[in-house]
Amino acid sequence: MESTNKFPRKFKDVSLEELRDKVAEFAKVRNWDKFHSPRNLLLALVGEVGELSEIFQWKGEVERGLPNWSSDDKKHLEEEISDVLLYLVQLADVCGLDLGQAALSKIVKNAQKYPLRD
Amino acid sequence: MESTNKFPRKFKDVSLEELRDKVAEFAKVRNWDKFHSPRNLLLALVGEVGELSEIFQWKGEVERGLPNWSSDDKKHLEEEISDVLLYLVQLADVCGLDLGQAALSKIVKNAQKYPLRD
Amino acid sequence: MESTNKFPRKFKDVSLEELRDKVAEFAKVRNWDKFHSPRNLLLALVGEVGELSEIFQWKGEVERGLPNWSSDDKKHLEEEISDVLLYLVQLADVCGLDLGQAALSKIVKNAQKYPLRD
Amino acid sequence: MESTNKFPRKFKDVSLEELRDKVAEFAKVRNWDKFHSPRNLLLALVGEVGELSEIFQWKGEVERGLPNWSSDDKKHLEEEISDVLLYLVQLADVCGLDLGQAALSKIVKNAQKYPLRD
Repeated sequence: MESTNKFPRKFKDVSLEELRDKVAEFAKVRNWDKFHSPRNLLLALVGEVGELSEIFQWKGEVERGLPNWSSDDKKHLEEEISDVLLYLVQLADVCGLDLGQAALSKIVKNAQKYPLRD
Repeated sequence: MESTNKFPRKFKDVSLEELRDKVAEFAKVRNWDKFHSPRNLLLALVGEVGELSEIFQWKGEVERGLPNWSSDDKKHLEEEISDVLLYLVQLADVCGLDLGQAALSKIVKNAQKYPLRD
Repeated sequence: MESTNKFPRKFKDVSLEELRDKVAEFAKVRNWDKFHSPRNLLLALVGEVGELSEIFQWKGEVERGLPNWSSDDKKHLEEEISDVLLYLVQLADVCGLDLGQAALSKIVKNAQKYPLRD
Repeated sequence: MESTNKFPRKFKDVSLEELRDKVAEFAKVRNWDKFHSPRNLLLALVGEVGELSEIFQWKGEVERGLPNWSSDDKKHLEEEISDVLLYLVQLADVCGLDLGQAALSKIVKNAQKYPLRD
């Protein structure tokens, strides 16, 4: 099993629970929980998906690994893709869902839907 | 620090690397890598955000914890939110990004942008 | 001035007001106005943008004019792009905006933002 | 048949063909046609839907007619909703679709799907 990423393992894994706890704390200490209703967070997520799309909008087809992108463009992409993730984690949290377990279950369900052929 | 989720800790944490490796393997063994260009995955992500939005579209404001939702509706939500996450993980992967580290960095950056007042 | 479309003029122009009146009537006679709050319609719009994106998601780059698309695929595209338009028209309507005049004004503003060079 | 809008009829109707011709001309004279592939325009549309969502994201439920919105907020909304429309019109155009006729057909199809009960 290989991923596109070939990092030397400099960093420890980041878990969804770690992110969930960090963003929950971030909102709590700023007194932002009152803004974090499910639909508010969903629309914030849509906003960030829009910003992510803007990065790709005029580029035509983009190759895996982003071979011709500047480091600034890659940094920008990292930030926008993170914003989407962080709102997704918060949305799952305020809905009372365990996002990590849900994702593992969905992979199992997808494997049943698309079985391997011999 | 408290999250909305009050699970007894039945389950271990799920890491973004674990999800990344699982979905990369899933695509590889099905020979789907050829479809997984960055913009294809981005549009698939937008498609799943659309399905997630459809769940919320006619509900008016929704309370945290989804107190009046049926278990079927919650299950459906878990699946759609997972689909968004899995495409996001794949998009980061084919772009060569370390999503977990990017998200941790973004939280730090957000904390600098929105400092706590005394 | 030329558009990509080379229709013989079989059909009369369709105005935004005509569409607005038709969809307003459609909702009214079905007693659906109660569902058509601005944010409900916005999320419905996001849902349709998702369905539109799904049509394009695995295709890689697509040429203008869709030269290799089947008539079924084109028909499907017409329907999804129409769904986006119809929710957009309804969203503008329930917000009390004159969408046609707003769009004309935005074109003028864009022309000022991106002036022609000699 | 009544719409939410109670404009005195100061303005003539704006047709989709008029908008199509204006934005096609706008792009042509700026030599932007080369950027306007279907998927580029689709991602630009998603970006504008994101900006539209950002306007609504922290507001909780919003009433029809936007009774408590400032004129600046309404102006901003007019601009973002127009941006979505203009990219939608361009997307239909580069795909060779007649958006107005498609929308009228979709209304007819919707009426068949959701017949009026006696």
